[in-house]
Amino acid sequence: MPSPPDVVRFFAVFGLMLLAGKYAGALFERFRQPAVLGELIAGILLGAGALRVIPTGPDDPLTPVVALLAEIGVVVLLFEIGLETDLKAMARVGGAAGAVAVVGVAVPFALGVAYWLSPLHAYEHTLADATTTAIFVGATLTATSVGITARVLADLRCLRTVESRLILGAAVIDDVLGLVILGAVSGLAAGTAVSLWGVARILAVAVGFLVAAVAAGLALAPRVFGLIDRLQARGVLLVSAFAFLLLLAALADRAGSALIIGAFAAGIILSCTNQVDAIKERMTPVADIFTPVFFLSIGAAVDLRGWNPLDPANRETLVIGGVLFAIAVLGKLASGWAVPWRRYNRWAVGIGMAPRGEVGLIFAQIGLTAGVLSQRLFSAILLMVIGTTLIAPPLLKVAFARRGSTPEPA
Amino acid sequence: MPSPPDVVRFFAVFGLMLLAGKYAGALFERFRQPAVLGELIAGILLGAGALRVIPTGPDDPLTPVVALLAEIGVVVLLFEIGLETDLKAMARVGGAAGAVAVVGVAVPFALGVAYWLSPLHAYEHTLADATTTAIFVGATLTATSVGITARVLADLRCLRTVESRLILGAAVIDDVLGLVILGAVSGLAAGTAVSLWGVARILAVAVGFLVAAVAAGLALAPRVFGLIDRLQARGVLLVSAFAFLLLLAALADRAGSALIIGAFAAGIILSCTNQVDAIKERMTPVADIFTPVFFLSIGAAVDLRGWNPLDPANRETLVIGGVLFAIAVLGKLASGWAVPWRRYNRWAVGIGMAPRGEVGLIFAQIGLTAGVLSQRLFSAILLMVIGTTLIAPPLLKVAFARRGSTPEPA
Repeated sequence: MPSPPDVVRFFAVFGLMLLAGKYAGALFERFRQPAVLGELIAGILLGAGALRVIPTGPDDPLTPVVALLAEIGVVVLLFEIGLETDLKAMARVGGAAGAVAVVGVAVPFALGVAYWLSPLHAYEHTLADATTTAIFVGATLTATSVGITARVLADLRCLRTVESRLILGAAVIDDVLGLVILGAVSGLAAGTAVSLWGVARILAVAVGFLVAAVAAGLALAPRVFGLIDRLQARGVLLVSAFAFLLLLAALADRAGSALIIGAFAAGIILSCTNQVDAIKERMTPVADIFTPVFFLSIGAAVDLRGWNPLDPANRETLVIGGVLFAIAVLGKLASGWAVPWRRYNRWAVGIGMAPRGEVGLIFAQIGLTAGVLSQRLFSAILLMVIGTTLIAPPLLKVAFARRGSTPEPA
Repeated sequence: MPSPPDVVRFFAVFGLMLLAGKYAGALFERFRQPAVLGELIAGILLGAGALRVIPTGPDDPLTPVVALLAEIGVVVLLFEIGLETDLKAMARVGGAAGAVAVVGVAVPFALGVAYWLSPLHAYEHTLADATTTAIFVGATLTATSVGITARVLADLRCLRTVESRLILGAAVIDDVLGLVILGAVSGLAAGTAVSLWGVARILAVAVGFLVAAVAAGLALAPRVFGLIDRLQARGVLLVSAFAFLLLLAALADRAGSALIIGAFAAGIILSCTNQVDAIKERMTPVADIFTPVFFLSIGAAVDLRGWNPLDPANRETLVIGGVLFAIAVLGKLASGWAVPWRRYNRWAVGIGMAPRGEVGLIFAQIGLTAGVLSQRLFSAILLMVIGTTLIAPPLLKVAFARRGSTPEPA
């Protein structure tokens, strides 16, 4: 058993995080802003740069505990989104979503590499040659945080629109592409050559898992959950759904895909059972407890002091971070014009793809650890990641309010 | 962030624990046994002595994580019991519950000390004198695990009976007495003298906190939760109740009382708000996810191999453990006769007080660490703790079935 002081502090930290996140979210909703923005800002206030309530230090025994609860939070969120997903509607926009994802990866990557190979920035000393560093900078610009985007779309009650299907479909495809990019940059960081064969294998495994899991799940789940429902014992349906979600997420990761893709697949699979409404209803309170931890943790990683523009030591970081931020927003915005359909909200799709969230942070962390990125460049990338994550919720709201949304064809 | 292998294993462990616990529970219910017994046995199978799925080793990074989830499980359970508690009905049995608790502490303690000071057992070498060891052995026999007992009473749908009020009231008082005993034995283990003044202070703080928290809570909570309910944002009511429970539990511990007493007080306080039904409904799925972790963890600590009677090395442990088990059961059974009322189920009350659960383990752990208990004596005490915990659910069911229960007077 853990020592009692740890338990007491864990209870206090968890309780304060949930209260701060929920009430900040409710406050933002009162001003007609997405609740997730309130949770991110509550995380910044409780985090490493301010009140230090949320544990983030590597030596704090509660840091891994909060991180694991945050991971449960994001998979539960993707599971909920999966439950709401109409597979046929998703399939109808599949090709278009693929185009959005590819443009949203290619344009920011090209702009990022071009910027870093140009003489437009001050000299940065890194352990790698300029090309490797430039590829890393470009890679951190390619991610889309499906967690943030999905939550904003749910907050705005826009899930059942063509724009949402496009954004979520593209974000999931982006996560699959992200696995490929992760494999490539990990190889680069380790100094090994990146083979076309290796890239193709990663892509095949990630896509193959998703297709196989959903196909097998759709064939088996309705019968299995029908039997489970007949047991009539307290909590059996909820616990079975929750365990299925955790196990499919773990299996997805083991199979070379990603946790959140497994969780999304679990949601899609259970959305086709007769028990979907009961599962949704009972999963809601569970999501209310876990999901805020994910967004609070993202906020908690931000240390605003490093971004104080009055401190001359921060100026170069802020300039590079500002340029990367502009590239990041413009690059993803371009993805809104990737589909040649006549009528849909291109601005909303482009902005919806913008938040980099935790995926961009993972790439940056690998680069920092390998010495391919300097500490200053890492800070600039962090600024870009946080900036795109914070700006997306309010801008997406404006985009939908100004230019409307397109209802799904029946 | 934790390393991905940890996340994947955590998801797999958590998912398997929940599935095994829930289906073992459902199986036991099918055979008209309390579900908690199934969860305990599933914990033994997944635990240190068998499949090793549940992390228990001191070096496993997931051990403290599962332990913290288990702690949330037990406080959520006590909170749910508190929500079901009718404070007036509890107050009516207050004096009688006090008598049950005092007899249930005094008799096992006296029998345990007498056994250890008698020549009835083989010589044990410990670092302390025989009297100190005897007091420790007696202390481990005094605990009542309100978690196990409350869960069994809920499984048997007996919460609204005079017997349940007596057992739960006495178990809570026993937890307060346990704090006093913990203070005394910790002093003994450290070799310092135990003063009457110190004991009185611990008792005053523990009782004072409970009374003050419930009084203040009853005055404020109905108004505060009325305001919260009017916010109408998703999850605000549930998150507020959950955070209140965690924070009051942490505060109780800090104030010198215990986590579970704070959680129970939080439940009693919210049972008097107009939102109690909504809180109960939304807390149920949260409890379904967390509570099994507590019972699975208790089971996981059991290593059945040390109790193999065919191994001669285990015989002395088994004999001492068997005697302690008999004392433990008979001593608590006596508490059923502590109240001079004419008509109530004395057997059910006595058996309901029997499970030692985690509280007995805490005392034993302190004694082992301080060298007051030998490893063999610790194993014998573990046998007594697990035995009383496993035997209480089925015996309590038989006691209620044979001799009935007494409905609460309206």
